Amino acid sequence: MEKIKFQPLENITLVDRIEKHIIEHIKEHKLKPGDALPKEMELAEWLGVSRTAVREAMSRLRTLGLVESKKHRGMILKEPDLINNIQKAIDTKMLDENTLQDLFEFRLMFEIGMVDFVFARKTPEQVAELERLAREANYEYVDNYFSLKDEFMFHSTLYKMANNQTLLRFQEMLLPVFQYVHDFQEKEITNLNEGNTLVTHLDLVEELKNGTPQSFREAMRMHLSPHFQRMRTRRVI
Amino acid sequence: MEKIKFQPLENITLVDRIEKHIIEHIKEHKLKPGDALPKEMELAEWLGVSRTAVREAMSRLRTLGLVESKKHRGMILKEPDLINNIQKAIDTKMLDENTLQDLFEFRLMFEIGMVDFVFARKTPEQVAELERLAREANYEYVDNYFSLKDEFMFHSTLYKMANNQTLLRFQEMLLPVFQYVHDFQEKEITNLNEGNTLVTHLDLVEELKNGTPQSFREAMRMHLSPHFQRMRTRRVI
Repeated sequence: MEKIKFQPLENITLVDRIEKHIIEHIKEHKLKPGDALPKEMELAEWLGVSRTAVREAMSRLRTLGLVESKKHRGMILKEPDLINNIQKAIDTKMLDENTLQDLFEFRLMFEIGMVDFVFARKTPEQVAELERLAREANYEYVDNYFSLKDEFMFHSTLYKMANNQTLLRFQEMLLPVFQYVHDFQEKEITNLNEGNTLVTHLDLVEELKNGTPQSFREAMRMHLSPHFQRMRTRRVI
Repeated sequence: MEKIKFQPLENITLVDRIEKHIIEHIKEHKLKPGDALPKEMELAEWLGVSRTAVREAMSRLRTLGLVESKKHRGMILKEPDLINNIQKAIDTKMLDENTLQDLFEFRLMFEIGMVDFVFARKTPEQVAELERLAREANYEYVDNYFSLKDEFMFHSTLYKMANNQTLLRFQEMLLPVFQYVHDFQEKEITNLNEGNTLVTHLDLVEELKNGTPQSFREAMRMHLSPHFQRMRTRRVI
């Protein structure tokens, strides 16, 4: 008899399978946050597995923030928090250089891409605050092209204007990444910047007040051009 | 004696604290993927806690994909996977409408924001593929403004051109969200679109071949304008 060689399609354990079943159960029954999951014992019986295995699958879902245990009610579904678990991965500082670059590029994409939202949702108070930040930081700005704190305050205000809560949390989470890229890019950026027309924070405020989404977008693109140049020279296909 | 009322700053358990300690340990010792963590017993002794509590913290880190257990080597650090855990949260379909909207806006931001990367990294083969997709889908396109499959194939190719691996996985993960938003927006978008100058996929290919990042970006903005209009009218501050 011929020997059949096969490779496992997925490295999937019993607990993985139970976890998948529970997620399927949630989808099929269209369960919502606040709803209770079946009891550990019931699940173990239905699936024909041990309670220990069910308990471990539940513990995973709790770690992922999808359920919480409540006294007398058992396991209750929770609104999943998309950002929380990425946070922990970033905290370890174990991301490789490629992923850090990817995330830094996210920043550039967001700041160009969110312009229409900034325009549509900005409040007069936010614009005034942005102008104040740009004016107060201005002197420091001339001496020292990148003052990270000023940069941060200014761009954070723009993210707030875009008024997308998930984006705002994403940006806060990515700050350590920006700091990292900032640190190793600082010298190079100063060099790359020579010969460019520099668009300042004050110029951006002016565009936000009197320009259009289109003119603001192109001004932001110019403002960020040292970063874009850095990124282009980095990875060649 | 006056009674002091206080609120706990954080709802933090013993296992939470152990988890934090381990993450701090990874950062302080600059541990990398492949490095081993201290043994369960050692950690329990250092922290003055039970092995059961350490085991639970380790199990969480395993769930988050930060460690894996290997025979004879104990707990080994793993390159964290940023996307994997968000995937499970999205799979449950328990996200509320605001978060879904936030994520849909991510798509719009990325497609506008990634244009410079698309231009800098596109290959002739990818441009040819994009043109083929636009031509083949063209007839269907006239009859039925949104054919989701064509839309998906075309825009996926653009994401590939941007050549940011994290973004590509993010986009794949968000597809069910786009499908959802697509389903409930379809009718409204058709109405909103009346009177707009429609920028087709073929127009976009033309810009990619003979235009500039700036002209392509504005063409993409026009192409997506039904979505942008929908979003603007949705949330008012």
